[in-house]
Amino acid sequence: MLSKNQIKYIQSLHQKKYRQQHGAFLVEGAKSVQEVLQSDFQVDLLVATEAFYKENTRLTDRQRTPVEIASVADLERTGTLESNNAALAVVRTKENRPLLAGPDEIALILDDIRDPGNLGTIIRIADWYGIRKIICSETTADVYNPKVISASKGSFTRVNWWYGDIEQFLKQSAKGQIVYGAFLGGDDVHALAFSKSGYLVMGNESNGISPEIGQYVTKRVTIPRYGEAESLNVGIATAVLLDNWRRSLT
Amino acid sequence: MLSKNQIKYIQSLHQKKYRQQHGAFLVEGAKSVQEVLQSDFQVDLLVATEAFYKENTRLTDRQRTPVEIASVADLERTGTLESNNAALAVVRTKENRPLLAGPDEIALILDDIRDPGNLGTIIRIADWYGIRKIICSETTADVYNPKVISASKGSFTRVNWWYGDIEQFLKQSAKGQIVYGAFLGGDDVHALAFSKSGYLVMGNESNGISPEIGQYVTKRVTIPRYGEAESLNVGIATAVLLDNWRRSLT
Repeated sequence: MLSKNQIKYIQSLHQKKYRQQHGAFLVEGAKSVQEVLQSDFQVDLLVATEAFYKENTRLTDRQRTPVEIASVADLERTGTLESNNAALAVVRTKENRPLLAGPDEIALILDDIRDPGNLGTIIRIADWYGIRKIICSETTADVYNPKVISASKGSFTRVNWWYGDIEQFLKQSAKGQIVYGAFLGGDDVHALAFSKSGYLVMGNESNGISPEIGQYVTKRVTIPRYGEAESLNVGIATAVLLDNWRRSLT
Repeated sequence: MLSKNQIKYIQSLHQKKYRQQHGAFLVEGAKSVQEVLQSDFQVDLLVATEAFYKENTRLTDRQRTPVEIASVADLERTGTLESNNAALAVVRTKENRPLLAGPDEIALILDDIRDPGNLGTIIRIADWYGIRKIICSETTADVYNPKVISASKGSFTRVNWWYGDIEQFLKQSAKGQIVYGAFLGGDDVHALAFSKSGYLVMGNESNGISPEIGQYVTKRVTIPRYGEAESLNVGIATAVLLDNWRRSLT
């Protein structure tokens, strides 16, 4: 059974301030918890219904994960999900290590993606298209926000990220590499032969890529429009661009 | 100023039952309200802040729309949006008229898309890719749900829909036409030459296309996966498929 202190601790992790202070975050729901138990993340505590625990002892035994059995009511009270009849994990955050796209590798750069749902969706899309590295501006939503983790549908266990000064990154680390950026009025991606390696910058939901970052974009690209919608959601645009990138390489 | 009865009436339109009973639905927020005022939808009532009204009299005069001036607090109390500092419109629903894809036309068929956010996103994507017709199973989310209208970002004014028995539709009305359907293990869309006309069926968020509908799919198609995510969200998949469809025709 969960102690009062445990409940208070878990609830504190809903907030970024306490996630940073404790170096821990929450993973909720059957599928995501199963994925994190099989990943290289360190799980500090598993809070699970008896049924979930029994079905997944193989996974908890592997890491000798500390387990507390809880009711559905406790899971929903301590976690952020409206309904959770399975489990919740308290997981160690990872060190914020710099990333570089290797040869024959595509990496994403996110310039101020504010919505946690969009960031989670982008992580899931990256995982579908085999993108392993996401470089985030410091103003991008916190990847450890429970909404990001939940929207990523377990893909957060397979994708790496780094938060930092993306302007400096583009200036120094990405020098000499092709940097694609999603803009209106760029080259039609249906007609473009993408490079095997490089970066794709996606911009803020309302304002797109900022001018300071835009100056480092070496190739502006656009998804052709056949109707009248003003724009596409940034997650949708990321998927269509990565799909065209992969398609142009085959 | 809004009367008590007007407030009660507007609030009742949050629910499908009352939307159907009154033949009316809500459009909220500056952008969506501006779009609906310029569309062929009949606006019964505009509830607007004085600032919004003054900036948009050109639009309200055009249709001689009845207007009530309201505070931001009133807009948020009567509507469904957490924040709305502009306007809300009470709009007539349209007749549920059958649709058919014409020659050289692509239409969407939605088999049990339950999430209002997904449906709204699909309408926006359809509008981007110039798709004018969406045929919805009766179990698909109600297009007049405020969450659908809001997620469509105004595109609901440019796309038509019909709700009905999609199995009967496929059996009779779509006979002889190519019916594409998103399945795992279908033909790779990166290598496929799509037909100029036909239908694309998208299935339920958890279960995909149902077996009863699947039997009418004449071409199973798949978005190739390069990483490990188990699936893509149905809105994302719709965008990538329509993008490949358009690309293969150019």
